[in-house]
Amino acid sequence: MLILITYDVNTETSAGRARLRRVAKQCVNYGTRVQNSVFECILDNAQFVKLKAILKDIIDENVDSLRFYDLGNKYKTKVEHIGISRGIKAEEPLIF
Amino acid sequence: MLILITYDVNTETSAGRARLRRVAKQCVNYGTRVQNSVFECILDNAQFVKLKAILKDIIDENVDSLRFYDLGNKYKTKVEHIGISRGIKAEEPLIF
Repeated sequence: MLILITYDVNTETSAGRARLRRVAKQCVNYGTRVQNSVFECILDNAQFVKLKAILKDIIDENVDSLRFYDLGNKYKTKVEHIGISRGIKAEEPLIF
Repeated sequence: MLILITYDVNTETSAGRARLRRVAKQCVNYGTRVQNSVFECILDNAQFVKLKAILKDIIDENVDSLRFYDLGNKYKTKVEHIGISRGIKAEEPLIF
């Protein structure tokens, strides 16, 4: 299934940027970074449970927000895009 | 249906921040700003077409990225959250 993961973190701090890099690194194991802090991951249920636990350990739950959206298996017609495609690599330094 | 809208924009520029404010203002007419640049909107098909056209006019397609995800009508079990809930109001000045 396609799980969309959105991560809201203050990237004005180096700690925030580091957390975003760590989250990105985990997410791109299973999919694509479609925006700076939005990831589309193809996961089965076991992988989803595991990834959630890993990400929960990375983020600071007192200041960060992490959301998961289950788009199911028939997701190709459910996604639309306008504008540029960033194609950000997980290891790239953050520009903003 | 629930349409998730994610907007990737460089908020280091005042023009970028202004575009985000304008996008937010449109999106919160139909729903909630759940993260700094993530919006959950309840829309019918006609509203969805209209909102897409409005947002397309606001963003800079050469530098911004806008994505739409259709979560259908039975979306309540498809969304999970970890961490803080920001509850950002559309008119608030951007913190980051």
